[in-house]
Amino acid sequence: MSDFSIGVDLGGTNLRIAAVASDGQLLEKVTLGTKVALGRDHVINEMCDAIQRLSAKYREAGKLLGAGIGIPGIIDMQTGMLRKSANLPGWSDYPVRAEIERRLGARVVLENDANVAALGEQWLGAARGVPNMAVATLGTGIGGGIVLGGKIWHGMNGMAGEFGHVTLEPEGHPCGCGNRGCAEQYASASAIVRMAREAIASGDAPSLANAASSDAEFGAKSIYNLAIQGDEHARRIFRSFGRYLGILLSGLINVLNLEMFVIGGGVSSAWDAYAPNMFEELRERSLVYAATAPADPLMSDSLGKEEGASAQTESLTQRKTIITRALLGSDAGLYGAARAAVPAG
Amino acid sequence: MSDFSIGVDLGGTNLRIAAVASDGQLLEKVTLGTKVALGRDHVINEMCDAIQRLSAKYREAGKLLGAGIGIPGIIDMQTGMLRKSANLPGWSDYPVRAEIERRLGARVVLENDANVAALGEQWLGAARGVPNMAVATLGTGIGGGIVLGGKIWHGMNGMAGEFGHVTLEPEGHPCGCGNRGCAEQYASASAIVRMAREAIASGDAPSLANAASSDAEFGAKSIYNLAIQGDEHARRIFRSFGRYLGILLSGLINVLNLEMFVIGGGVSSAWDAYAPNMFEELRERSLVYAATAPADPLMSDSLGKEEGASAQTESLTQRKTIITRALLGSDAGLYGAARAAVPAG
Repeated sequence: MSDFSIGVDLGGTNLRIAAVASDGQLLEKVTLGTKVALGRDHVINEMCDAIQRLSAKYREAGKLLGAGIGIPGIIDMQTGMLRKSANLPGWSDYPVRAEIERRLGARVVLENDANVAALGEQWLGAARGVPNMAVATLGTGIGGGIVLGGKIWHGMNGMAGEFGHVTLEPEGHPCGCGNRGCAEQYASASAIVRMAREAIASGDAPSLANAASSDAEFGAKSIYNLAIQGDEHARRIFRSFGRYLGILLSGLINVLNLEMFVIGGGVSSAWDAYAPNMFEELRERSLVYAATAPADPLMSDSLGKEEGASAQTESLTQRKTIITRALLGSDAGLYGAARAAVPAG
Repeated sequence: MSDFSIGVDLGGTNLRIAAVASDGQLLEKVTLGTKVALGRDHVINEMCDAIQRLSAKYREAGKLLGAGIGIPGIIDMQTGMLRKSANLPGWSDYPVRAEIERRLGARVVLENDANVAALGEQWLGAARGVPNMAVATLGTGIGGGIVLGGKIWHGMNGMAGEFGHVTLEPEGHPCGCGNRGCAEQYASASAIVRMAREAIASGDAPSLANAASSDAEFGAKSIYNLAIQGDEHARRIFRSFGRYLGILLSGLINVLNLEMFVIGGGVSSAWDAYAPNMFEELRERSLVYAATAPADPLMSDSLGKEEGASAQTESLTQRKTIITRALLGSDAGLYGAARAAVPAG
């Protein structure tokens, strides 16, 4: 017998559905493309079919505890409606949860994708066993999720964790949200590309200009590759990225004093290029971090999963603030959605 | 029968002790000077004598539920020791809680003063009935306290709520904490005086220069008085103050999405001089605030206590973010300390 829940990661590109046992074991994972162009009903049909197929299959072995769906966008937790989602046009103000519950005849939990990613890392990833933590997901933008006492902290109406729109430079770059100087203008993949384009435009970054013209997929990853090859212009971009990520985290640590902050998302893997500057800012800018910093914070990254777990336990006894990389990659949200579906108790 | 607890506000100047009934009614309040110069033991003796006197007196009518002591400084919640307190020299690394418990033969809770101020406002003040809220106390520096689910959010080791040291200007004014551009360099009483001194030094603020030379107690209050009389230089200072307070709150709202943020401390009473700019920044800089702002946020300040309570209920139903002034003044910490002493449950 193994009770299980269904986790869904409904992204703008991929639709992934997994059956996950209540002890965290993956039973099965299905990856489909999100056929946004075929419309909302088509996507919901595909998702519900897959959920029902997986549920039927594993119901033989255990009870279905629920289904959780992680969606990029702002979700009204009370009504189960999507208030706003850039990647799912036509889904706003539609009763997503009620419709899926009707089709499945089961309890469904809708969650913001950054929130379930945080819960996934807390349940099975970098912050396993750490009750209070946050995840910053660095991708095109910056997503954020906070877990307190092992549960997602939603705030008043599900909008908590908007780390990407914390102001870091009052007179900084305009942001799509209407503000200026938001964190995601300085510490995201788009920020890296913008900084590279600016350096190219200034005329004194020939290596970047060369890469941009020869590489059809020129992006944050190409710039990272230049950085690890020692290109000074590319390195400078990641230093700035690390600096601003450090400023963002300094504020979060001063406000929340959590045990762990996990850095996820595609850009997080450029850790060696930005982490030294990030830690430098943390030590200078956060009196809470300075009082709780591990002797060698960079070490936390080089630990394997097993070693990491024991190092964490030790660090928590010593009450240190751990900043580390996410472990679950793009599966964090899938696991977290499955976890969010399990009723508390 | 009225069970009660003892609240203590141990400041650098005043030592205040109150017996508070479990329904929030003040039974008696004693105000003493904090004779810091006579040493730690003298202050602890005076405090314990007053606690015992009040306890003996009200024990006739009900049970003593505990004693809570609010102290400016960083407290190790596990050991009950003061890690650092600028106003109480010689108290660091001394087992304050254990010593007071020994003398009183009763359970004692030590708390940071900003945390108990937040709990006081949540229990009996501006945020009565609001489970999730934060208080920013604007005085010489900026204190902060977060209450989640009706309880102080301590973070990992009691250091949560350091709003005053959130970076607002990465290359800004140096702060005593070692950082640059901390919130308290821009939105505290000291920041107001610094801005006035800078304006005077620049030579084009004759009204401020005049006030500074004729007023022996020239400070934030004198500058506020000039501002409400229409002095443009003084008004500009409060506009900047409101702007930075708005930037700080925007970040907190984006991260925490709380129902209410309460502005307390001496400078908070200059509300009319800084609030319009604060709200302007909030609308521009916080997508969470913009999605949840009340139609007329400034109104929340002009409401009386009774009206305020009903307006709050209504606003919460509509899930609005309320920014408002503290109601309990310097008593917030005293009430909060009494509340913190009551065991949960």
